[in-house]
Amino acid sequence: MQKQVNFEQAIKNKYPEQVVITIAKDKDGKANPVTLGWTMIVSGEPPMMAIAVYKGHYTVKCIRHSKCFTIAFPSADMADAALFFGSKSGRDTDKFTEFDCKTEPAKKIDSLLLTDAVANFECTLESQTTAGDHIIFVGKVVAAHTNAESKKRLYSIAPGHKLGPAS
Amino acid sequence: MQKQVNFEQAIKNKYPEQVVITIAKDKDGKANPVTLGWTMIVSGEPPMMAIAVYKGHYTVKCIRHSKCFTIAFPSADMADAALFFGSKSGRDTDKFTEFDCKTEPAKKIDSLLLTDAVANFECTLESQTTAGDHIIFVGKVVAAHTNAESKKRLYSIAPGHKLGPAS
Repeated sequence: MQKQVNFEQAIKNKYPEQVVITIAKDKDGKANPVTLGWTMIVSGEPPMMAIAVYKGHYTVKCIRHSKCFTIAFPSADMADAALFFGSKSGRDTDKFTEFDCKTEPAKKIDSLLLTDAVANFECTLESQTTAGDHIIFVGKVVAAHTNAESKKRLYSIAPGHKLGPAS
Repeated sequence: MQKQVNFEQAIKNKYPEQVVITIAKDKDGKANPVTLGWTMIVSGEPPMMAIAVYKGHYTVKCIRHSKCFTIAFPSADMADAALFFGSKSGRDTDKFTEFDCKTEPAKKIDSLLLTDAVANFECTLESQTTAGDHIIFVGKVVAAHTNAESKKRLYSIAPGHKLGPAS
């Protein structure tokens, strides 16, 4: 039986929710990673993926500057990196200097891949649409990578930024 | 270590992926449910959610006609309904007549809620953007509902439309 409640209450049913780390460079060439839960695939042919980024986030400036971004699926053992990248702002922090996280250059775009992630997707900016307090960035996937080792993906499993594997 | 592969290979790391059932009425008033995996929240204030729908799907016509839609989070015991709604087209099928699934009227929009779902979100159409072979529909959430019983949400847990709880 359905019971009408406010959005905040109903959306508590979303868990586990996927977690991605998006990386884009700013005008000074600094790669800025941010942790996001609001993401989806949006096209099969050609492959495209979307992220929703809070309009005040530094990542918005970075993507608008570089016109490309990486979407990484962090592995279940990367919870600390995801929490760090999600809680600091690239405006006043060089997150990759302050938190030790292995990266490697992307192959087709000017960005980085996360070496220990489950997968990485290199995207060129296709469109951007404002939706309420966020910007939806759609990226065309121009290169994709998986981890040579089999790893579990990281999820948000409960309110309060509780992160872990989904099962 | 990252290994470059094609998109199809890399995206196999997406599981478990959330599943939603979207319902919109066509011009004859027939409510048409469709099962989707490509969905995300896109705004907190005001609350908004997005879905990506293949451009050839009947749902595109229904949403463009009615300018509103429901997003239901099916419960883990609704796998058969999700498979049925995802494999038939509303062009030639009245899916709610052919598959027994409890519904109730939405409160704020002209659509239906799924009585046994974990949660239902009533959305008014806010924007639509073409992205490759899909249309991204953004909806503003105007009413939200949860199940009075505590239930697990349904996920796509492996390729080949394998559905079940995430854990």
